[in-house]
Amino acid sequence: MKLALPAAAVILALSTAAAFAASKEEEAIKYRKAVMTTIAWNFGPIGAMVKGERPFDKNLAMRNADRLEALGKMPLEGFVPGTESGGDTKVKAEAFLEMDKFRTAMEKMQSETTKLAVAARSGNLDQIKPAFGDVAKACKSCHDNYRAK
Amino acid sequence: MKLALPAAAVILALSTAAAFAASKEEEAIKYRKAVMTTIAWNFGPIGAMVKGERPFDKNLAMRNADRLEALGKMPLEGFVPGTESGGDTKVKAEAFLEMDKFRTAMEKMQSETTKLAVAARSGNLDQIKPAFGDVAKACKSCHDNYRAK
Repeated sequence: MKLALPAAAVILALSTAAAFAASKEEEAIKYRKAVMTTIAWNFGPIGAMVKGERPFDKNLAMRNADRLEALGKMPLEGFVPGTESGGDTKVKAEAFLEMDKFRTAMEKMQSETTKLAVAARSGNLDQIKPAFGDVAKACKSCHDNYRAK
Repeated sequence: MKLALPAAAVILALSTAAAFAASKEEEAIKYRKAVMTTIAWNFGPIGAMVKGERPFDKNLAMRNADRLEALGKMPLEGFVPGTESGGDTKVKAEAFLEMDKFRTAMEKMQSETTKLAVAARSGNLDQIKPAFGDVAKACKSCHDNYRAK
């Protein structure tokens, strides 16, 4: 253990605070919802540009698309056994009963966000529009199948 | 508007759902808290490795450190005017009264996560430990100054 004592104390303090907050299952549900919230925040401005509701800002589009690509890889690990129901979640049981299909749907979203990030690097809104639409469709498809209204 | 109608309808449906959820200020508070939750989730496993509570997994450490670097750049934009108080937030007024200092503290965290990502690429836990400690200290310093207990 080469870690200096002050840093170790800091880590302990931070992790202890987390430990009191929730069970492992509650943490996983909170995490996956947090990722979705973060995705939505970064998705919104690109959508507004695509719809012509805000001026096209290629740097913002590129930044947010890169974020979406990174964030898209994060939610799946929050859907762990024991978080199917009972917690603060809208997930349908089907997501766990058909985990292979659910994972495939997540991977579809991931590959579409990667394509959006590539399109955003072009700096061309006409390339971003269809790629954005494909991400939106991947989101909606998974929500329709696996999230309760 | 070259977007095909089905995609446009999807985008409208997704954005309308978001619009009903909360005010702009509530969205910003929800967003910054979501980023913090996502940071904590990805921070934890590296901390457990550093403390010897779980086996060192260099790929997981690298992946999570890369995520922390990306996530570290996200929370600041959630601290917009109108979100100082009144909402579901523990932020202290000082964060808004001393926004330059608050921003500097955030930037310190960002640069420390970048160093952690570099250290994690070494695949050497002895390089990760001090870099991790520096991230933890940057987190704690900002929490101590700007987050209510």
